[in-house]
Amino acid sequence: MGLDPEITRLPASVAGAADPIFEFNRRIIDATHKYTAAYKPNFAFYESYGQKGMAALDKTVRYINKLDTNIFIIADAKRGDIGNTSKMYARAVFGEMPFDAVTVAPYMGEDSVTPFLSYPGKWAIILALTSNKGADDFQYHTDKGQRLFEKVLSLSQRWGTTDNIMYVVGATRAEMLAGIRKIVPDHFLLVPGVGAQGGSLAEVVQYGMNRQCGLLVNSSRGIIYADSSENFAETAGEKAREIQEEMAIYLAKRF
Amino acid sequence: MGLDPEITRLPASVAGAADPIFEFNRRIIDATHKYTAAYKPNFAFYESYGQKGMAALDKTVRYINKLDTNIFIIADAKRGDIGNTSKMYARAVFGEMPFDAVTVAPYMGEDSVTPFLSYPGKWAIILALTSNKGADDFQYHTDKGQRLFEKVLSLSQRWGTTDNIMYVVGATRAEMLAGIRKIVPDHFLLVPGVGAQGGSLAEVVQYGMNRQCGLLVNSSRGIIYADSSENFAETAGEKAREIQEEMAIYLAKRF
Repeated sequence: MGLDPEITRLPASVAGAADPIFEFNRRIIDATHKYTAAYKPNFAFYESYGQKGMAALDKTVRYINKLDTNIFIIADAKRGDIGNTSKMYARAVFGEMPFDAVTVAPYMGEDSVTPFLSYPGKWAIILALTSNKGADDFQYHTDKGQRLFEKVLSLSQRWGTTDNIMYVVGATRAEMLAGIRKIVPDHFLLVPGVGAQGGSLAEVVQYGMNRQCGLLVNSSRGIIYADSSENFAETAGEKAREIQEEMAIYLAKRF
Repeated sequence: MGLDPEITRLPASVAGAADPIFEFNRRIIDATHKYTAAYKPNFAFYESYGQKGMAALDKTVRYINKLDTNIFIIADAKRGDIGNTSKMYARAVFGEMPFDAVTVAPYMGEDSVTPFLSYPGKWAIILALTSNKGADDFQYHTDKGQRLFEKVLSLSQRWGTTDNIMYVVGATRAEMLAGIRKIVPDHFLLVPGVGAQGGSLAEVVQYGMNRQCGLLVNSSRGIIYADSSENFAETAGEKAREIQEEMAIYLAKRF
């Protein structure tokens, strides 16, 4: 579940709180954590409120950890830089903050990714085929029949293991999942884009599930902004439960 | 000039200050600003120290602006996400903090870049061919004779103008600059990698300079860590002056 708070979209009772971003998150988390395998705060939403935003992010991650240490927490930060610099980004999310995983942009190649793989029990989630329109611009660039996102999948899996690398594949590209599963049959996939972006959970499961499930399916705006009234948290809980129950049916059929 | 402070590399008098990161930067800036067209703090180094680090970054940017409003300040953050999220990253660097430019990773395509172009007078600096070894992994992926970094250059220049887009081309790839200049003859290029990474300023100028100069050449570790003693700031000033004087000779020959 994405935790992407926008101050302009917060209900009055939350907007007036001492720490509105954290207060929004806390109420959403309280209402949804029973149905949620992982939370994924996107850093942009916190950075856009400066130091207060980053303090609220830090508080949010620690709040989730305290509530339930089994919940996986993803730093959706799309980081990546030359080796000595990615090392610093890894320290930011795994050393300074207790995230379990971070999303990583692959453009700069191996040394930009491997520093995120040196923390035991932590994960790098590498962008492969993203959910947005701009994915068409470069991710399909094709060298000898191999598209760029396929090259990213096939090359980068050598840098780590199925226990420290996952890949981002947008739900809006669900029909591509069958081909992607031929390249990475065993890796977990983080699949954003169900909900507001229009992706279908049924299709994601049909094409993307493997024998361990292998899917972390994300919805952000479809849950947290399903209701703009003071009942937002209750509605978010219902939306999270709906998706969890739909997923439970698919899991029961398969396992 | 890169401002990438690492606490483990700071001299004792700085390490003991109340705000060691800012104190290091302030002394470096005081000693170098006369020779410096632009400062480029890399966000990873600040994020790795958590909220204190980000506070020191904010203070640093405001300090430079107060000292000399003509100095250009680049948020080296390699950001990029789906459109509604990149909009938030743009607000973080241009709204919350007074940066003039931000480095952007192009993997996610047009909608991940254009939100950075909607701030008048501000710049997006798009990664094209980077200075690190990992650049070989994906940036040379070749579709119908066009390498990925060439596709990035040719496609993305349509999203903005020569007044709001620059490109990153590593100094360690100086021989590639001649070909790159055929695709982007008029854009400014940010060229990191002179100094510690081994790039040559003479070659960068030879292959990359255009009729407006069109080059922002960066050195980070070669200046700020040239001297680990208490004289670090004085030595940094000398190193910055050396590069500035070498550049002045090339400029005088050409203009």
